[in-house]
Amino acid sequence: MSTLGNIIVGQSGGPTSVINSSLAGVFKTAKDDGARTIYGMRNGIQGLLENRFVDMKEGIKSDLDVEILKRTPSSYLGSCRYKLPDVEKDEKTYENIFAILKRLEIDHFFYIGGNDSMDTIKKLSAYAKAKSEKITFVGVPKTIDNDLAVTDHTPGFGSAAKYIGTSVKEIIRDALVYDMKMVTVVEIMGRNAGWLTASAALAKTEECDGVDMIFLPELDFDLNLFADKVKKMQEKKKALVIAVSEGLKTADGTYVCKMGDSITFKDSFGHTNLGGTGMFLANKLAAELGCKTRTVDFSTLQRCAAHITSRVDVEEAFAAGTHAVKAAFKGETGKVVVFNRVSSSPYAMLTELADVAKIANVEKQVPSEWIINDGTYISDEFLKYAKPLIQGEIAPYMVEGLPRHLVLR
Amino acid sequence: MSTLGNIIVGQSGGPTSVINSSLAGVFKTAKDDGARTIYGMRNGIQGLLENRFVDMKEGIKSDLDVEILKRTPSSYLGSCRYKLPDVEKDEKTYENIFAILKRLEIDHFFYIGGNDSMDTIKKLSAYAKAKSEKITFVGVPKTIDNDLAVTDHTPGFGSAAKYIGTSVKEIIRDALVYDMKMVTVVEIMGRNAGWLTASAALAKTEECDGVDMIFLPELDFDLNLFADKVKKMQEKKKALVIAVSEGLKTADGTYVCKMGDSITFKDSFGHTNLGGTGMFLANKLAAELGCKTRTVDFSTLQRCAAHITSRVDVEEAFAAGTHAVKAAFKGETGKVVVFNRVSSSPYAMLTELADVAKIANVEKQVPSEWIINDGTYISDEFLKYAKPLIQGEIAPYMVEGLPRHLVLR
Repeated sequence: MSTLGNIIVGQSGGPTSVINSSLAGVFKTAKDDGARTIYGMRNGIQGLLENRFVDMKEGIKSDLDVEILKRTPSSYLGSCRYKLPDVEKDEKTYENIFAILKRLEIDHFFYIGGNDSMDTIKKLSAYAKAKSEKITFVGVPKTIDNDLAVTDHTPGFGSAAKYIGTSVKEIIRDALVYDMKMVTVVEIMGRNAGWLTASAALAKTEECDGVDMIFLPELDFDLNLFADKVKKMQEKKKALVIAVSEGLKTADGTYVCKMGDSITFKDSFGHTNLGGTGMFLANKLAAELGCKTRTVDFSTLQRCAAHITSRVDVEEAFAAGTHAVKAAFKGETGKVVVFNRVSSSPYAMLTELADVAKIANVEKQVPSEWIINDGTYISDEFLKYAKPLIQGEIAPYMVEGLPRHLVLR
Repeated sequence: MSTLGNIIVGQSGGPTSVINSSLAGVFKTAKDDGARTIYGMRNGIQGLLENRFVDMKEGIKSDLDVEILKRTPSSYLGSCRYKLPDVEKDEKTYENIFAILKRLEIDHFFYIGGNDSMDTIKKLSAYAKAKSEKITFVGVPKTIDNDLAVTDHTPGFGSAAKYIGTSVKEIIRDALVYDMKMVTVVEIMGRNAGWLTASAALAKTEECDGVDMIFLPELDFDLNLFADKVKKMQEKKKALVIAVSEGLKTADGTYVCKMGDSITFKDSFGHTNLGGTGMFLANKLAAELGCKTRTVDFSTLQRCAAHITSRVDVEEAFAAGTHAVKAAFKGETGKVVVFNRVSSSPYAMLTELADVAKIANVEKQVPSEWIINDGTYISDEFLKYAKPLIQGEIAPYMVEGLPRHLVLR
């Protein structure tokens, strides 16, 4: 199969600090290998269905632009949360997509995203086979949540973990400044998988004692036991810093953040989508322990803080894009790029291809045997796993004191 | 007066990312100029009164340690929120302090802090004069809020502003990722002075349109006008990012965050100290505009994010410490180091001494003539003022993927 022809690439799902590095990898590799036109879908498959796409060579004009793109957070092409319907239920959508792809003479289709995006690759590649269409479909994984199966980790996780480890270290310094009892509750993303919350453990270093407790969504959360544990710990140490997952829920399946919501704004505005696990717990502790409490919610910062990314992560994200293009040009389809760990120390990682069916719609959680101290901390196995992923920095290009980004106007 | 002798230095009030750079400036300069013992108060004047202090040469052993200290957030010596009583009301406290200072044979006393700390310098220096004590008292300003009088700006503001400008730029990229209506409300510190909230305007650069509106605490806040303005703006632009001060209050003096509190957790835990201006406004908008809203609260991150400081700020903070020591060794007392702007472009700043009485207990707000667009934005005069203060970076010393800090055990 020729390495020439046209390609199209899209980004989908929640952004990360390095999802554009994967896009840069796809673009640069395809361009260098002689792709004719490199189309970019605006807002993923949803935009494609509305005939919204760009010629990426018009927006990325130089290798400098490629480097700036690698340092630009969020999704350069825009994103969507569109789940492709089953072909049996709605074949029309598939016909529309392929009509557009044919009109653009697309040979290779790349999609950078998480579970739903891999589901899209799975369905489109299956449809192509069924209709004997020559177009190849390859997925590039991304998600800060690190909850994809098969792959050792996902591009985006390492940088989010580095941001969390760095910020938590700084928060600990700040929390210890006064000679008084205080509890700081840090809320971290990851509704069902605790990989990011566990990353708070990275703050423990030679000169820093780290966080005092970590609560992951993998285990049922007990509100009263929580307060008791904090109370006991406070007898030995005045200032505590506790990391909690946004997705904590009690044994009966109630999200802690919803407990907050129910009291929060429902009555005033009839709107419940908010609250915050951290704020709810901080206030419960303030009421029960009668001490000062504080909440820090990293919210969107942990997925867009491109000014403090992991070089390992940025380069792996780029490489994932490169491998996707190389594979497609060899004729591979219905595949996704995955990482296979050879060794943690020294760090050695293989970049491979996997059948997308194996990864789509499967969620990987933190192994329960890694959760220790009666569900309040994470074991050294996690640190051994995560530390290689946060190594190295890639300095932003600073202009007038702020990071420069590449933006599609 | 001899340049030898013993000195003591303390840190007070809320920490900043560069308050330790001022401490490094005091330590390094005093050491190089031949100070005999350099004492550090644990938790400021409060700790001193409890005879808690350290010999700083034991904790800072090398020039490498000095450099790490410059890169360590929060207060290395610990801090306090202690306001010295008036001598007429409680002379005993003064007698206690001077008894300790005499026992340690202190010749020079330095205090790094904000308004209250300068008040401490004012009172102690006045007391020393009244009792013809030879000890000199010099203040080094710090506060991310930038609300001190006399000085052009305060050490700590530039780095907080750089963190805010950088993070807001990243949040804007993230907010524009979906093709849908959404409002992101970013809450920024500064209860009475809007210097930090105004810094969100720095995010407007060649490639970034910046935030859509900025609401400062200097003006009365109108909840309904706010919703109307957002609604009107949303007709032209889908995704909006709005910066609000934590200290917004309505014409009758009610804090917006308290409006949230009153509904939030009072009923459940009888505890009201929380809420969040940003979350309250985001939920009001969600209810009134029926669109997705999101809150980002920088909280303590904006004062401790030492991984992204301004080199100008770090160096000025260090220089402020140096000047304080040089002045004290010349016999100056009852003074505070201030900055006097000669030119914004090119940036030229004089470091001078001011009578501490002029700066203590005075609060400097954003000039009302700088607040434009019917109270929804900040003028270019602010950008001209703030931009020189966020220039340059000082890379953290990264160890195993995370910034190294200097910690007093």
